[in-house]
Amino acid sequence: MKKFEEKTTKTTPVYDGRIVKLQIDDVTLPNGQVAKREIIKHPGAVAVIAVTAEGKLVLVEQYRKALERSIIEIPAGKLEPGEEPVVTARRELEEETGYGAHSLTFLQAFATSPGFADEVIYLFVAKGLYKIENKADLDEDEFVELLEVSLEEAQTMVVDQRIYDAKTAFAVLWLAANLENNLLA
Amino acid sequence: MKKFEEKTTKTTPVYDGRIVKLQIDDVTLPNGQVAKREIIKHPGAVAVIAVTAEGKLVLVEQYRKALERSIIEIPAGKLEPGEEPVVTARRELEEETGYGAHSLTFLQAFATSPGFADEVIYLFVAKGLYKIENKADLDEDEFVELLEVSLEEAQTMVVDQRIYDAKTAFAVLWLAANLENNLLA
Repeated sequence: MKKFEEKTTKTTPVYDGRIVKLQIDDVTLPNGQVAKREIIKHPGAVAVIAVTAEGKLVLVEQYRKALERSIIEIPAGKLEPGEEPVVTARRELEEETGYGAHSLTFLQAFATSPGFADEVIYLFVAKGLYKIENKADLDEDEFVELLEVSLEEAQTMVVDQRIYDAKTAFAVLWLAANLENNLLA
Repeated sequence: MKKFEEKTTKTTPVYDGRIVKLQIDDVTLPNGQVAKREIIKHPGAVAVIAVTAEGKLVLVEQYRKALERSIIEIPAGKLEPGEEPVVTARRELEEETGYGAHSLTFLQAFATSPGFADEVIYLFVAKGLYKIENKADLDEDEFVELLEVSLEEAQTMVVDQRIYDAKTAFAVLWLAANLENNLLA
């Protein structure tokens, strides 16, 4: 997967933060010309399509400073260094929703913003949900509200843009395809 | 949509580049505590679900420096300042694929990486494709290869991760739902 490879001749670190790093790469293009690429490094994240026994999709609402608004998303969170995505997925599901899952299955991974960032989201499907009595706390700077919605409600929320998040829009389409096919039974 | 609002007390610009800006916001949380948020500002982008008369999905392969690999995506591109998304969508479709479209319909918008970036993608559906004889050139630092795949091929490419991009994975699910329902006729 190196078609049209852009070879790095120099990397200039610009910022090394708590979550993201920014660097400028000088590259040589396939035609021999040179260009600069602004690259955001991110640790990657997980997201969880969690479906209750009633077939409802578990969502969380939280404020996203980058967008200056609160948005509704499937449960998600950043990978800690060296952590297996399935471990992150189980922790974030529990912290954000209070649910454990008897089954947590890897569905697929995808890049979210390949034009400028290396963030990859590992997407899981959680089934067999159960309430955890003494759930782990959220991070101290995290405030979320739990919602559980039917497929029909979720589809309406995509149309009226109350769902305004790529991974969550994907989850709603995925749920529609799989509920219809009884793949969640 | 201001639930759990984080009020900005100070913004520190870190980097102002050709595509992204990076700033650190000092915020006051809903519980009165303070935190810092690393924010990437991005102009936003469009992406186009383009379906040929034969029902094939139009894809482009290109090298993405952030991922250090080439990936396969639906046609997409950044918004220019002040540009209407539909104008960007028509231009990017033409530049990257050589196709014009008799119909270009807005489907929905979504944030791609709300945890750290303000990028929003405006997603369009193009129908009535026709080949443009003297198509506009790509940007001089852009190299892409055109692919046209059936729904079945696209679904296989998601499973084996040759499609490794959130908006494109969404497009494949969307196409499956809408081809089945004959909504693309």
